[in-house]
Amino acid sequence: MAKARRIITLLTDFGYAGEYVGVMKGVILSINPQCQLVDLTHQIASQNILQAAFVLHNSYRFFPKGTIHLVVVDPGVGTKRRPIILKKDGYFFVGPDNGVFGLVLQGGKYAAVEITALSFLKLPMSLTFHGRDIFAPVAAHLSLGTGMRKFGPPLTDLQKIPWPQPIKEGKKIIGQIVFVDSFGNLITNIDRQFFVSQIGGRQFKIKIKKRSLYCLQETYAQVPQGKLLALWGSAGYLEIAVNCGHAQRLLKMRPGDPIIISLL
Amino acid sequence: MAKARRIITLLTDFGYAGEYVGVMKGVILSINPQCQLVDLTHQIASQNILQAAFVLHNSYRFFPKGTIHLVVVDPGVGTKRRPIILKKDGYFFVGPDNGVFGLVLQGGKYAAVEITALSFLKLPMSLTFHGRDIFAPVAAHLSLGTGMRKFGPPLTDLQKIPWPQPIKEGKKIIGQIVFVDSFGNLITNIDRQFFVSQIGGRQFKIKIKKRSLYCLQETYAQVPQGKLLALWGSAGYLEIAVNCGHAQRLLKMRPGDPIIISLL
Amino acid sequence: MAKARRIITLLTDFGYAGEYVGVMKGVILSINPQCQLVDLTHQIASQNILQAAFVLHNSYRFFPKGTIHLVVVDPGVGTKRRPIILKKDGYFFVGPDNGVFGLVLQGGKYAAVEITALSFLKLPMSLTFHGRDIFAPVAAHLSLGTGMRKFGPPLTDLQKIPWPQPIKEGKKIIGQIVFVDSFGNLITNIDRQFFVSQIGGRQFKIKIKKRSLYCLQETYAQVPQGKLLALWGSAGYLEIAVNCGHAQRLLKMRPGDPIIISLL
Repeated sequence: MAKARRIITLLTDFGYAGEYVGVMKGVILSINPQCQLVDLTHQIASQNILQAAFVLHNSYRFFPKGTIHLVVVDPGVGTKRRPIILKKDGYFFVGPDNGVFGLVLQGGKYAAVEITALSFLKLPMSLTFHGRDIFAPVAAHLSLGTGMRKFGPPLTDLQKIPWPQPIKEGKKIIGQIVFVDSFGNLITNIDRQFFVSQIGGRQFKIKIKKRSLYCLQETYAQVPQGKLLALWGSAGYLEIAVNCGHAQRLLKMRPGDPIIISLL
Repeated sequence: MAKARRIITLLTDFGYAGEYVGVMKGVILSINPQCQLVDLTHQIASQNILQAAFVLHNSYRFFPKGTIHLVVVDPGVGTKRRPIILKKDGYFFVGPDNGVFGLVLQGGKYAAVEITALSFLKLPMSLTFHGRDIFAPVAAHLSLGTGMRKFGPPLTDLQKIPWPQPIKEGKKIIGQIVFVDSFGNLITNIDRQFFVSQIGGRQFKIKIKKRSLYCLQETYAQVPQGKLLALWGSAGYLEIAVNCGHAQRLLKMRPGDPIIISLL
Repeated sequence: MAKARRIITLLTDFGYAGEYVGVMKGVILSINPQCQLVDLTHQIASQNILQAAFVLHNSYRFFPKGTIHLVVVDPGVGTKRRPIILKKDGYFFVGPDNGVFGLVLQGGKYAAVEITALSFLKLPMSLTFHGRDIFAPVAAHLSLGTGMRKFGPPLTDLQKIPWPQPIKEGKKIIGQIVFVDSFGNLITNIDRQFFVSQIGGRQFKIKIKKRSLYCLQETYAQVPQGKLLALWGSAGYLEIAVNCGHAQRLLKMRPGDPIIISLL
């Protein structure tokens, strides 16, 4: 794949109304008309860095190596938080150093630079839309093959993210909901490896509000329509769902609400 | 057009939040970085096979021959419903054999195969996201020019769809609403050919809840703003609309509700 | 950039449900498979010409010269309003002559033609979807390098738009909200140049319903979370926002509502 056909993905909390996403694409295509633009999603809840970090973590590896992931969830736009380029696992990431890359960073080596070189930015620069004036043009220049170090000095102290790890307390695993997808499925922070290490082949009960589940299903359709179930979601996390229904509306739960698994 | 620049369209009920659509695009571009991706829509109502079949039927012919239409509305993911490739009218279709291709299949010849060849899939395969692990990679390999028969054995007994045809009862046509578009226009299952064959040039009354219309308009603006009208929609079906208004909110009707046309 | 790789942007009020946008893209790619399609937005409020004009005005210059901006917000579809091609500042615009290009036209020279040549249209032509049958194919033929004059005769009397300019009354500037973005930020019609010319360095009060602000901030994060502020938005208009909040929900204001700035 020629450098000029590189992929840039976009992940923001801009929504689909208004011109913000389109304008970023215009800026990118003005610099590299050959690059391929892919929307990850623009419906991250406004200013929700945790949600953006989770969606990015679940997506980035499915793209070809060399893909540039542009993330603009940036409540601190115009303040001191640093604009950065990150390289990890053969992928590039461009966005604010506010924790949005916190899950990508976990485990393994990375390289990062702070973006300081004015020559790659869109000037005069606004204080309210760095997606347009910093991150989009930097991603476009990266896609043309400009080396990371041209954009600024190396960084090693990137912002971490307060990711809620599931906890083991006695005979209980205390996890929580971290994301609700558009089917209303409740995706938790309990991953398969943690579950297996703590529960293994023993009997368990999953407590969700006043309801209990005693087993995991393999597919949504393994229970009758309208019934609650738990299964491993496609990103590897325990997921609470309703077959052909909407678990979030049924249970009225939201990110942050607890899910407790007890050994019986 | 070189094979490698072939178009893949995506039609799902995934919504625009979350990473599901983006991940499918990543998988496709990892296999064929040159293909052109076009979203049909991702706002099919969750698990609504009928709606997906209707939208696909109204769209697929507007793309260049050779286009691959990837459809993932798949409530039975992970169960026995077969993953298939269908070829009809020079177009390819990839998705679950659950009726979603039921309207495309009507009239004319087709060829189909069941997808069984593991070598084209993304392994290890999840049981909850075949869009990512089966349908996206198969569509990408098709776009590279791999022949249909390489993916699996031929099929001839594809799943039909319980499509609600309009009925003639005495002097009445009983149709129904099948789709509501984002303008709130109520699109019915009564197509122009059926209407002409049953009504011809005679006087008629269209009964919509307690309201009656006695003629068809040619354009929305032929009635005053806020007024109800009936006209032929762009896909060739009778449509109930409000000029510069929202028929669905005015009438509080939904897919499945009846529309009755009486000869006077 | 080769002509065949030209960019076509799409700006409509079609929403993301249904097949309308996808079908337009299919028509375009059937004529020019090499062009690059970019969505500006499809969430313009139904039939809201003013909003479309504003979003277009804030976007078009961020794309490379030669980009074709296709706009279909067209309540008068099928009536006498003229389909046009407009060229201004090195950009092309295709859509209905109903005011949607009214802000782009302000200041500077332009050239325009009425689209009359049937050979570039999709026939038989519907009366309800000129986006598919006129505007999409015309944009695609333009992207192949067909000269404007091939599409029809020149026009000079394009439709203006009743754009609400801010007013100076004594010691007051009376502006209004013209757009609410997906963060809930209230974007006004008061631009920086007008503000500076009327207020200059003097003390002022911005009255928003019962609340008052006495200064402009530079960034959202300059006030505590949840607090109201005013600042210059990224398109150069005065914007009322809530740091990490949603001004529209807090203030329950909408486009058309007044914002009054008084000299103290």
